[in-house]
Order: sequence, then structure tokens, then C-alpha cells
Amino acid sequence: MSTRPADQELNRETLDAVLKRRFFYAPAFEIYDGVSGLYDYGPPGCALQTRIIDTWRDHFVLEDDMLEVDTTMLTPHEVLKTSGHVDKFADWMCRDLASGEIFRADHLVEEVLEARLKGDKEARGIKEDVVEDESAKKRKKKVKEIVAIKLDDNVKEEYETILAKIDGFSGPELGEIMDKYKIVNPVTGGPLEKPMEFNLMFETAIGPSGKLKGFLRPETAQGQFLNFNKLLDCNNTKMPFASASIGKSFRNEISPRSGLLRVREFTMAEIEHFVDPLDKDHHRFDEVKDVKLRFLAKDVQSAGKTDIQEMTIGQAVETGLVDNKTLGYFLARIYLFLIKIGVNPDRLRFRQHMSNEMAHYATDCWDAELHTSYGWIECVGCADRSAYDLSVHEARTKVKLQVQQKLDAPLVEDKFVCEYDKKKFGPLLKKAAKPVEEWFESRTQCELEDLAKALEAGKIVLPEIEGVEVAGTELDKSHIKIEKKTITTHVRDYTPNVIEPSFGIGRILYSLIEHCFWTRPEDASGAKGVLSFPPRIAPTKVLVVPLSSQKELAPFTQEVSKKLRQARISAKVDDSSASIGKRYARNDEMGTPFGITVDFDTVKDNSVTLRERDSTRQVRGSIDAVIAAINVMTADDVAWEEATKDLTPFDSTDKE
Amino acid sequence: MSTRPADQELNRETLDAVLKRRFFYAPAFEIYDGVSGLYDYGPPGCALQTRIIDTWRDHFVLEDDMLEVDTTMLTPHEVLKTSGHVDKFADWMCRDLASGEIFRADHLVEEVLEARLKGDKEARGIKEDVVEDESAKKRKKKVKEIVAIKLDDNVKEEYETILAKIDGFSGPELGEIMDKYKIVNPVTGGPLEKPMEFNLMFETAIGPSGKLKGFLRPETAQGQFLNFNKLLDCNNTKMPFASASIGKSFRNEISPRSGLLRVREFTMAEIEHFVDPLDKDHHRFDEVKDVKLRFLAKDVQSAGKTDIQEMTIGQAVETGLVDNKTLGYFLARIYLFLIKIGVNPDRLRFRQHMSNEMAHYATDCWDAELHTSYGWIECVGCADRSAYDLSVHEARTKVKLQVQQKLDAPLVEDKFVCEYDKKKFGPLLKKAAKPVEEWFESRTQCELEDLAKALEAGKIVLPEIEGVEVAGTELDKSHIKIEKKTITTHVRDYTPNVIEPSFGIGRILYSLIEHCFWTRPEDASGAKGVLSFPPRIAPTKVLVVPLSSQKELAPFTQEVSKKLRQARISAKVDDSSASIGKRYARNDEMGTPFGITVDFDTVKDNSVTLRERDSTRQVRGSIDAVIAAINVMTADDVAWEEATKDLTPFDSTDKE
Repeated sequence: MSTRPADQELNRETLDAVLKRRFFYAPAFEIYDGVSGLYDYGPPGCALQTRIIDTWRDHFVLEDDMLEVDTTMLTPHEVLKTSGHVDKFADWMCRDLASGEIFRADHLVEEVLEARLKGDKEARGIKEDVVEDESAKKRKKKVKEIVAIKLDDNVKEEYETILAKIDGFSGPELGEIMDKYKIVNPVTGGPLEKPMEFNLMFETAIGPSGKLKGFLRPETAQGQFLNFNKLLDCNNTKMPFASASIGKSFRNEISPRSGLLRVREFTMAEIEHFVDPLDKDHHRFDEVKDVKLRFLAKDVQSAGKTDIQEMTIGQAVETGLVDNKTLGYFLARIYLFLIKIGVNPDRLRFRQHMSNEMAHYATDCWDAELHTSYGWIECVGCADRSAYDLSVHEARTKVKLQVQQKLDAPLVEDKFVCEYDKKKFGPLLKKAAKPVEEWFESRTQCELEDLAKALEAGKIVLPEIEGVEVAGTELDKSHIKIEKKTITTHVRDYTPNVIEPSFGIGRILYSLIEHCFWTRPEDASGAKGVLSFPPRIAPTKVLVVPLSSQKELAPFTQEVSKKLRQARISAKVDDSSASIGKRYARNDEMGTPFGITVDFDTVKDNSVTLRERDSTRQVRGSIDAVIAAINVMTADDVAWEEATKDLTPFDSTDKE
Repeated sequence: MSTRPADQELNRETLDAVLKRRFFYAPAFEIYDGVSGLYDYGPPGCALQTRIIDTWRDHFVLEDDMLEVDTTMLTPHEVLKTSGHVDKFADWMCRDLASGEIFRADHLVEEVLEARLKGDKEARGIKEDVVEDESAKKRKKKVKEIVAIKLDDNVKEEYETILAKIDGFSGPELGEIMDKYKIVNPVTGGPLEKPMEFNLMFETAIGPSGKLKGFLRPETAQGQFLNFNKLLDCNNTKMPFASASIGKSFRNEISPRSGLLRVREFTMAEIEHFVDPLDKDHHRFDEVKDVKLRFLAKDVQSAGKTDIQEMTIGQAVETGLVDNKTLGYFLARIYLFLIKIGVNPDRLRFRQHMSNEMAHYATDCWDAELHTSYGWIECVGCADRSAYDLSVHEARTKVKLQVQQKLDAPLVEDKFVCEYDKKKFGPLLKKAAKPVEEWFESRTQCELEDLAKALEAGKIVLPEIEGVEVAGTELDKSHIKIEKKTITTHVRDYTPNVIEPSFGIGRILYSLIEHCFWTRPEDASGAKGVLSFPPRIAPTKVLVVPLSSQKELAPFTQEVSKKLRQARISAKVDDSSASIGKRYARNDEMGTPFGITVDFDTVKDNSVTLRERDSTRQVRGSIDAVIAAINVMTADDVAWEEATKDLTPFDSTDKE
């Protein structure tokens, strides 16, 4: 057992109580009434996060020899202007000038129309269906009550069409919908301003002058792109290679909701795999080609369906469902990582982005989604960002962010080439000479052929060129020559494409908790929660419990504790006066996989009992033998049967 | 060998070249011309940081069962107003209105006066001494040239007095000094504005309204204090206990300098050990009492000296040099940690803060300082913050942040106690009733005795009480009774004191690099740098080098690589065409402790050569035996002699 049984529904109230009681996480600044969208991880949550990150580093960075970097969160304005975030990283918001309230426009429209559709169902006497309930759980409702009013059939249909496309509307379009359907502040009934763009980056000023504007990064990726040349050097200029980064990023959400799933400060782990755009194969693809994944393709979604196709990643790449082997390799590796940390494979799917969802520069994008009580949650994105980022930073800084590939055989081509007469070209164009030269150099061969013809016929009349005023200026053969020449190239320069697997650690952590949580209905005190984390991931590995508080047991409890520390196995001692069953139950909800009981036989023969959390099975052996068994189960994922085969099965007389 | 020999001086130019070439770290946003005080860690720097943090977590969190938390960096204004940071976390700056330049006032005064004193020495024909040179290296100089002008003897003396006390001046005092000694913009000679306070926190707005002001945290400590009650619960309400946190903090330095030593964004690891103010013993003190440390006490410094006292921490606590056993325990543990990661003990001292250096709430404070080419650098602070933080947050939020201790024997006391007549006290004072009641409850026994007397004599006339207008209001016995009663208490409430070891990870990392760097003058190409990191800390553990690029070696190189990965030992393959000596030299400067050479004998008998970085000794054995040896040297700190005793010594014929 490591995930909730398929036939057991999640009891979110019970789970939330456990998470709060054990301080997995809690609203930050709670004694100051909190700030929405900010959470602190308490000891078990923090340890769980560390275990996930350590496993991530082993699984990705170490395994594929990635170049991990740690870059700053503070980022100057110019960098994020170039990357497009200053202009495009925004949501639409509506203000109520009277109350001061601010709503996220798309969420408000969605919620109001959903409420009206529910009211319509009530008026028509139709019962709620479960699917809607689940999506409703996603957020704190702004609409407080459902009013039973029957809608016209055509209005109902219009609402449904809008809801199906809710993620695709621009701000002005949302404004039109709000006008047309009279969507106002649902609490006060007051009017709302037209939707305005709100940039989601936190802004600050760097340095004492206040003039250098900066932001907290919205992703770790930019820091990796900016260091591309240094990283290529670190890899001895060999391609392909991947960099990686783990750290906090920030989004100033308009109205955070859904606990850890939509927060303002979060840990990301991102990989940027740089690859030759002409060769997106991966040298280790064969090692994963038989891994079976569950795909939700874009054409299935376009047809309004959610049918899963299950096939191996080898088949998916062969049939073209997944664009290339590098993307395929990462999808399989993402799957293997998620399973390793304890995600339920039946609650995991890979959903392809539809064309209107992707960033304009992305060529293909798949999300690993995990199913939770909030619905399907995007936890890992895996996008092909093409050459976009490196290109825009190169264009802005004039620092070349390219790879120079030595060609096996020299490339011989007939090409149009420009030659400028320094003595006449320069004086004519003055300051514009360099931009005009750059303009010529960036023409295609086709365009150069046309320009050569114009020159042959007498002159080239310059068009508008960005940044300089040269439109209408005439050039003739005395200024420039454009001729076909045979060019031999020994190298090829190219801007790498980037495949980016991007992990939201907080979302993975929360979904994992849901997947691992189940209840054991055992006694009168009600259901007992269990968090069945795999041993390698569990926040604490061992609970040490002395059977009684009598003094003679204390030295043995200490000995066990010390030996566990020396083996670097994290453990807690519970020497409280609660019954041993209660102490174990308390601990099962922390997800601690093993328990060691020190009892009066320990005093006689140095033996202790080892208990397994999920099955509550017990075995008995010497302190050293028990710790050795725990060690292999925790560090090397050895199964219980194998690890404890030399220990003695033990029937507890103490009822749990 | 693990640190630079005592007789070898650091060659900082060589080191800087290595750090840059190998991308240990580099200015962030370098292709955008950088932002001062922001650095990115490249692959070796990032791996080194991770190893330091992992070791820290093992050494402190795991060893002493600390409660690690991960709290948010974004912090609302109110929290940092309460903690005192909004009002006091500032430096003094001076603006030149003409040029727009901004100077940190104390740095400017220091630098100008030092330059004048140097000019004076030149004029007097006195040679520079080494100590001054070293401190001058600390910063990018604002004063570009030294002018040889002789000073009056009394002026010279005044300058020296000011410099000795430079850290202690307020802004207005610095302003007076600047006026008196005509300190202006050293570059332009233009006038400067009076020193103004500049708060060092980065400010931002949380949420879409722009009204919730927030800061990036200047330390991780506040997040731990705010969660005190939850943490105490996690520890089953037992005292003492420690929490810990690792993460980024931010300081908007006026003029960052000295590379990684003074930056705007940095990683901290902080421990908050909560302890009963009446009992600051530590249950594990005896385990460390014989650890010998080098102390620089405050009275030695007050006398203008820097003499080190070397003694065990047991003696230091016994003689009162170190205030208590908990503080002593942590100083010893800090020492053991620093030595474990490779710090040179001869370049480490514990300096006690002088009274004028400490925060007003601190009762004792020691810094672990590491000696570098920038002088002695504070790398770990260990302060007793008393009950300050918990008290101010409790006062502000009215949430009790205290420990309730069950007393072994009930405490019986005669005490003055107030009783309020709800029917008369309430109606008289209305809204002020609660604050007035709180005012009475917070009186001392002495004050209550006086108030009881006044009441007995007729009436109490209320004084000014904060927040309410009651001054002059009269209370008599019908409103309140104040009488001596026998009170039996079974519990004792107290606010814990906090001992805080606070680690600047970036400073430790840089100092460690300096301690581990030395050069091997071996051939015509000049000195060869070596970074002698201990194996557990080294960014990469193994370099795998095939002797030649011939195809028959490739499968063995791959096999070694794969087996290292499976053993989770980080390794790099260098199959470039450079000579094997060059490849090893290149790698020595990355600090990789082991090299495995695959050669033509490997093809015959599956044996490989293992090389040790510092001694360049080599041994030979099977692939598995060599990897096993590396494993115990890396994970368990086993020495080379012990780990390789079953392998065969090997003399390389290939000259390095």
C-alpha cells in the first residue's frame, strides 16, 4: 500500500484537520491574521519538501549530469521586458470603486454564470451532478447564494458556450460579456469598472537611488538563459546539455485560492535542455521507450472529450503524438519521478496543450496533471520553448547566444554576399551605417537576389528601418555590391532550442499528500488517518516508542536514537504517557513508515520490535539488525519482505 | 592536506581567474552589464552550496532533532514594524545632488580619512604597512588617488580616533564629522547632502490593490518566531527545543562590495533555540566540553588589542567568558561544523561583540570569524536575543507566545489581586474598561500595593493610559477591590529566551574556497591551482578520464560512469583530447578529489587507476573495488590510507 485504495473517497475535512494539527503547512503570519496566498511549511511539510527536492536532484541532475545553477530572484526590469513578462505576464481584474473590492475578471464571469446555471437547474427541478460540485470546491465562492431563476433556453446555451471557452477571452471580450449579461459585484450588486490588465510580478527598487526598477522573478528559467554561454563552456562546448535550477518564484495573484495550489510564493524546479533544432533525438531514449503513459491529446480535447490513450512513449513518438524523442524522454522521466515519490499512477495523466493555450513561441507542450479533490491539477509543464528566449536576449544585448558546430565536411554553397564600400557607404549614411548594414545582413537569400537585381538596374531605395531615418535613401553600386559567391563554411552557427520541464514543487507536494492519504476505520474514536508516503520520501523515517515510562527503558531508547542518528536516519522519540496504540496512530498520520518499540525484553536481550505503518505488521530483532533493515528500505527502496526476511515475525499483544 | 599550507600566501588573482573560468559564481545579468551585489552560482558553486547545506542539515537539524520550517520571504509591513526592522534596519547615506551619486556615509568618512592619513604618511616619508593594505582591499575605492599632504599632529590623532570608533556613529554625528573635516564627493569635489537614513529592506506591494505594503525578509528568524506556538505543539509542548530554517534573505545595500561577502540576496541558515531563561544549561554540553576554541573577548578588544585566548569551551563557560552552557554548546557545534566542511582552524576565531555593537535586546553575542584576504569576516553570528521578539509580537497581536510549565510542587504566594465589579466598573469606563483592566493586570506587586493604599484612602485617580482617554477618572471600592490573597499556582508561564546561531552560507562558501585554495608550481605553464575541498563537500567527487579517445575504451568509461551514478556519486567524464596531466590539472582547480583513469589494461582485466587530488598518489584495482573505496571516503569521511589499503599502489608513467 502506498496510495489511497481506489474504492475509498478522499475525506478532505479529515485530511485538512491532520495537516493543520501536525503543522504540515499553515497560512503565513497567522497571528497577524495572515496574508492570502502565502503559506509556511512546518516541520513535516518542510521535511517532505526537502525529500522531494533531494529525490528530484538525484533523479534528474545527477542521473543526466545536468548543470545546476542558483541564480538571483531579484531581476532588473530590462531582462523581463526583453523576455516579454513586463508586457504579457498579466491577468484581467475588475474594481468596484464603491467597495474597493477587486475581482479577477475571468473567475468572476465563470462563477456568476455557473451560479445562474445552477439557479436555472433548481428552477427546472434538476438535481446537481457530482462533476460540478467538484469544480466548485476549487475556490472560496464570491457568489454566496444560488437563486432559482429559470433561464431562456438560448441564454442557457450562450452561458454554456462562454464557460467552455472561459480561458481564452481577452480583457475587452470579458468586459463585453459582463456588459451584455449584467455581471456586477455579486455581494453588493454595485457596478464594476471595465477589466484592466494587472501584471503579476512583484515590483521593487534595487539600490538606494530608487531608479533601478526590478521584479521578483516569475520563473527560474531566465537566469539559466542569461548564463547560456558560461554553461556551454562548463560542458566543454558540447551539445546537447541541460541546466537546472531549484528555487522560489513569485506571482502576485489577484485572488489566491485552493490552498497550496495557487500561491504567491512557491518553489519551482526547472530544467532547460538545450538542443540542436535539427536533431531532437535523445541518446538515452531507448532506456525509457517502453514506459507506458496515459495521454490526453489536443485533438481529443478539441472534440470536447477527455478520453485517455494509453501507450508506451516509444509508440507515442513513433506515431507523432509526442513531437520528438527529447520531449518523449522527459515525459517518461517525469512519470518515473512522480511514481518514485509516491504519486498514484491512476491519478496521473499527460495533457497536451491546445494551440490557443500555448505561449506564442512554444511548439509543443504537455502537462503532467495529478487528480485531486480540486480536479486535475497541472503539476509539471513540459514545453518546447523553441529558440525564443535566447534569441530575444541576444537581439537586446548583442551578445551572441549561439552554438558553433564544427561541420564534419565543409559546406560549399553559392550565396549572395554584400560588400560595402567603406569610403562611400559610411559618409552617406553616417550613424545609420551600422543599422543599415545589419539590415542587409539579416536579409534572406531570396531578398538579396531581388536587391541585387535592383542594384543591377541602377539603385536600391531603402525602406523604413527600425531606429534610423533612412527611408527613401538611394544606394548604387558605388556604395554596395551584392554578388553571388561560392562560400565554404567549416562551422555552423545556430541558436539552440529549449525543452523545458518545469515542476511546481508545492503542487506536487499537496497532490502527493492527497494520493497517500487514507483512513483506517478501527475504533470508536472514529477514522484514523494514514499518510502512506514511500519510506524515501517520508518526513521522518522512524518513531521510537518505549513501551512504558519506567526508567530502565530510557538507556535503550537513547541507544536506538543515537544509532539511528549515526546512520543518518531521521527519527522521533515519543515517550509520552499515551497508550502505544495511540502513539502509533498519531504517527501514522505523520506518514512515518517505521516504528521501533523498546520494551522489557529489550533490557534482557537487546531486541526491539519493528512495525510497518501501512500493514501494521511487526517483526523482532536486535537493535542493529532492525536499523540495518530500515536503512535498506529507506535509502535503497528495498521491499519489506526482502529487508526483514532474517527478522522474526511478531504478534503484538498490545491492541492498536 | 585540506587547506592551504601556512607558509603559502593566497594568490587572489589566480584564485579569481579559476573561480571565473570554472563558473563557481559570476555577476548576475552579466550580459545586461550586471547589477551590483547580485551573483549567480554556476554548477560547481551551486553544488558546493548544496553540499554545505546538506552537511549543515545533518550536523544541526538531524543531530539535535530540530524543527525545520520553510517560511515565506514576502513579509507584511506590520510584522517588520513590530520587530523593529522598519524603524532600525537602516544605514546612513549621503547624496550628491549634482552628480546623482550616493555614498554610504560611514564608508565615505572612513575612506577619505584613511586616504588623508596615507597622504600624511607619504608626506612624512613613512612606508605603508601591510595591515592597512589588507583592509584597503576590502572595497572598490571611491578615493582614486592619495595626495601627499602632511597633517597637523592633533588632526592626525582626531582622524585616528574617529576611525577606531567608525562603526558607532549616528547619522547626525557623521554629518558633523563631514562638516568639520570638509568631506565632499571625492571624485568631483562637489558638496554632499546631510546623511539620511536609508532602510535596507526591499519594499513591494502584495495583492492587486497596492495597499498592502510588504518587504522581502531581512532574516529568516521572524518566520520562526511567528510560528512559535505551533512549533511548541510539534515538540509535544516540551522545552527546550530549536527550530531551524534555510533560505534566501535580502538587504538592499547602499554600495555592495567585496564580491560574495556583501550582497543584496543571500542564503542564510538560522537556528532559533528556545530556552527557559532560568535554565540555560544544555543536556549535551558534556559531549563538547573538551572542544578547544580560539576566543577574542570583548574586554581584550576594549583595550585595543586582538590577543586570542585558546581554551576549551568547558573552561570558557566555567570562567564566565561565555555566558551559559547553551551558548557554549552552540559555539562548539559551530566550530565542529566549520572544521567538518574544510575550514582551516588556524584561520577561525570567535569574537565577542562589544556592548555598543549588540542589538539593544541581545545579552551576549559571539561571531565565528574566518580569516580571508579581505580580513576577518563574520560568517556565523551566535546571539542571545533574550525574550525580545516573542514579547513584541505577543504585545502587538495579543496572541500569547509563552510556555506553560507544570510546577513540580505548587507555588503558594501572598499576592495583591484585583477584582472588578462588572456592574459599576464597566458602565463607568465603557469602551475603556478592557484597556484599564489590562493596565491593572500589568502592574507590579509594588505598584498594586500603592494602588491598594490609595483605594483604602478613598480613590484611585487614573493616570494616562495608552489608547484611551481616562486620565483623571476616579475609581473607588465600588468599582474595584485590591486585596492580598493567598494564591496557589500549579503552573508557571514564561516567555522563552532565544539563542540564535545564524549562518551566512555565501560568506562561509567564499571563505572556505580561500582556505582550500593553494598552488602547485609544477611546470612552465605556471602555478597550478588546487581546491582541496574535503570529499564530502567537493562539488563533483570523481573525474573519469579515458587514457585515449580510442573506441575500445568507451564502453568501460560508460560502465564506470553508470556504476558511479547508481552509487549516487557525482562524477564527470572528460574524454577531450587534452593530455591526461592537463585534464587532471584542470580538474584539481574544480576541487574534484578523485580521478579514475580507464586505460588499455582496463580492457584486459577490468581494473582502473584511482588518483587522489592533493597528493597525486595513485592506486589500482577493479572498478567495483575503486568505487567502493570512493564511496566510504566520500560518504563516511574514511581516510585514503584506510579506504585504499586493499588496492595496489601504482606509479604513473604519464607525467602530470
